[in-house]
Amino acid sequence: MAKMTPRTLSGFMELLPAPQQQMERIMEILRTTYSRYGFTPLDTPLIEASEVLLAKGGGETEKQIYRFSKGDADLSLRFDLTVPLAKYVALHYNDLSFPFRRYQIGKVYRGERAQRGRFREFYQADIDIIGDGKLDIINEAEIPAIICQTFTALGLKRFQIRVNNRKILNGFYAMQELSDKSGDIMRTVDKLDKIGAEKVRKLLVDEIALTEAQADEILKFIAITGSNEEVLTALQAYAGRNETFDEGLGELNTVVKYLAAFGVGEANFAVDLTIARGLDYYTGTVYETTLLDHPEIGSVCSGGRYDNLAEYYTDRQLPGVGISIGLTRLFYVLGEQGLLNPELPTAPADVLILPMTEDLAPAISLATALRSAGIRTQLYTEQKKFKAKMNYANNLGIPYVVFLGDDEIAAGVVACKDMVTGEQTKLGFDETLARIHAGLAEKNSGCVILEK
Amino acid sequence: MAKMTPRTLSGFMELLPAPQQQMERIMEILRTTYSRYGFTPLDTPLIEASEVLLAKGGGETEKQIYRFSKGDADLSLRFDLTVPLAKYVALHYNDLSFPFRRYQIGKVYRGERAQRGRFREFYQADIDIIGDGKLDIINEAEIPAIICQTFTALGLKRFQIRVNNRKILNGFYAMQELSDKSGDIMRTVDKLDKIGAEKVRKLLVDEIALTEAQADEILKFIAITGSNEEVLTALQAYAGRNETFDEGLGELNTVVKYLAAFGVGEANFAVDLTIARGLDYYTGTVYETTLLDHPEIGSVCSGGRYDNLAEYYTDRQLPGVGISIGLTRLFYVLGEQGLLNPELPTAPADVLILPMTEDLAPAISLATALRSAGIRTQLYTEQKKFKAKMNYANNLGIPYVVFLGDDEIAAGVVACKDMVTGEQTKLGFDETLARIHAGLAEKNSGCVILEK
Repeated sequence: MAKMTPRTLSGFMELLPAPQQQMERIMEILRTTYSRYGFTPLDTPLIEASEVLLAKGGGETEKQIYRFSKGDADLSLRFDLTVPLAKYVALHYNDLSFPFRRYQIGKVYRGERAQRGRFREFYQADIDIIGDGKLDIINEAEIPAIICQTFTALGLKRFQIRVNNRKILNGFYAMQELSDKSGDIMRTVDKLDKIGAEKVRKLLVDEIALTEAQADEILKFIAITGSNEEVLTALQAYAGRNETFDEGLGELNTVVKYLAAFGVGEANFAVDLTIARGLDYYTGTVYETTLLDHPEIGSVCSGGRYDNLAEYYTDRQLPGVGISIGLTRLFYVLGEQGLLNPELPTAPADVLILPMTEDLAPAISLATALRSAGIRTQLYTEQKKFKAKMNYANNLGIPYVVFLGDDEIAAGVVACKDMVTGEQTKLGFDETLARIHAGLAEKNSGCVILEK
Repeated sequence: MAKMTPRTLSGFMELLPAPQQQMERIMEILRTTYSRYGFTPLDTPLIEASEVLLAKGGGETEKQIYRFSKGDADLSLRFDLTVPLAKYVALHYNDLSFPFRRYQIGKVYRGERAQRGRFREFYQADIDIIGDGKLDIINEAEIPAIICQTFTALGLKRFQIRVNNRKILNGFYAMQELSDKSGDIMRTVDKLDKIGAEKVRKLLVDEIALTEAQADEILKFIAITGSNEEVLTALQAYAGRNETFDEGLGELNTVVKYLAAFGVGEANFAVDLTIARGLDYYTGTVYETTLLDHPEIGSVCSGGRYDNLAEYYTDRQLPGVGISIGLTRLFYVLGEQGLLNPELPTAPADVLILPMTEDLAPAISLATALRSAGIRTQLYTEQKKFKAKMNYANNLGIPYVVFLGDDEIAAGVVACKDMVTGEQTKLGFDETLARIHAGLAEKNSGCVILEK
């Protein structure tokens, strides 16, 4: 028979079993952490009616969307988890209680140009808090605190959540009488990290037609850096000239104060006046998160406060705040940088049982007892040489191998080999179990990310 | 602004938060149970190249496939998890160790005619064990044992795994010199439950042109019922006349013997000679699982032994055995039948904190402490009347509400109300925590499925 060469599409991550175990571990930490903060899991369809998904329309994303017909239906794969959330909240409004806190970890699709580290199918891990009409400012401090807790639980230390407030920016540009050009200015300022202050200044003057004085004002403003306290103090100098600015500064002060109460250390967050994010969407606090040792990969977790989650579906005012981790890309980068802890077990099982008797019933009973005690156990019954069986355990990294022959059965003991130390014990079931439990606890004690 | 009416596509399950929590609980039990048996999780793309996914081609499924173009690429959404597994094993063969045990819980897509209880996007939860060249028969007993354990962990008792062996059927039809008609016969026999023996007999004679005597032989054969021992004894009467039959009977005897060793009770499995399943695919043991009180919904978990997982991709012989739970449909049926345990918590949080002070720092600290202790905690800070706050907790089913005012802070206590009993305590943090832990343990002690 002619064979079809098997392949996986370019831009689609398909992990081998060991890295998949690491990915599962990360997802489990995300689920657990998000749950601790009172977020409920959601799972919306991957396919939506195109007219619903693209109600907002236009933009860069539209070209990348996987859109197709099935029968009479015009369908699209979701390209983020925010639009499906907006649809969900508008559709199920009467069945929800507000503030509505949900997390969703799911795949999204964007037909980007294929290149290394860019994915067409990728996981996003989102949390959002949606209010009905209003939403308290404290939520804008809690969201980055959750991200900080999540990253810390994963083992990351060298990260920084950068915080800004769109009202401060809008208020500042209004003071300069540049409101109508603020979008263009912010897009230019966003290039600061890449091209430097001088080039930004030149673009502001040459392309956006600012005066030299205006450009200088802007550069002076975005040059405000230092500790959070220093930045907030410097911003105070602009206060009293524009209502929106003052409101934003008040919010930023509150967010910074509560972030500290949530236990987020100064090392892990910074007020950064260059952060703007989705210009037509965010209206208050905005966030980006960078890995301090890998600024080149950009933000791994971004979001902010918005006033109207679902304005394309409903007249109800549904303000919210949310943040999204680009999980597939983050996982890829962590792997590339060698930051995934290689000490953590990735084997499919904790114990491999090699039955040495013809009747497998005693081995099956032992496997059942171990499984009941929470030990991931595999019976190995293939007809292979002893060495091949041990190689199987070794190749998979299974930490314990148990031998069960007539002698052990008669003596009521279990022969158990620690595959790392090579030590072999013959102990009763309970003692063997205790030894395995203790060993696994130690092996699983590290964090999934191990910074160098 | 004109609004787009939000909607979710017909045939796509989108759960409200409370049932979603129940679904998550079920998935967690599946993941845990499968892991206990040494299966490693996989996560393959939802989209594959059409030529790869449809290498096998044809069949009923092809019409239902979501197939579309993106740029030059001809793409399809996966319609099951088996073909992607075959591709995965063929593609990554050199990086895998065999037997390769994997589970996958993922969405698949079939554009079926929309009707109540039929889904176009649905979860399958699959386990498979793939051998390299050979695979020991014990695996054919372990797979249904895992399903039995899974269903039991979910709380199901009234289910039956029905087991047959294709070699017995093939051997039997060879004895009757009906091998060339065996496919048509099996498809007819498969209707036995629905149309009864007399109509099956008539179809066998009228449509498949069997003699009356042949039809009688077949009806006599499939009428073999009783305890597993009785069925095996009756089958023994056919032994010695066909090699394939004898091989199949030997396998069935082994499977039945080991199923008992795995702790599967007679109430939960039965040898059933009418089971055939995918005629062009399965070659040994085959399984179907029915809910005894709901036979009308058909099999909720099916599978079997196959000789060639990946014959369309590789010349390597990759025999395997696997089983699949149609999770979305099962969940739907459980909900419809009222079998989901309503006592289990479905709230997004265990504790709702209502701060009674202007400075939220003490409430934030308390939330942080509760979360560190594993309690899912939400801070409620919206400006609402007291009654609205309590209604929020009630509507979501949050079991504990904590009040933190100046008095409590000064006294170093926590005021905690049990929303079910109405009892309110003022205790220190550790005592409050212990009370909450104990209460949650009790609330979470039930199974997710509660049979009537």
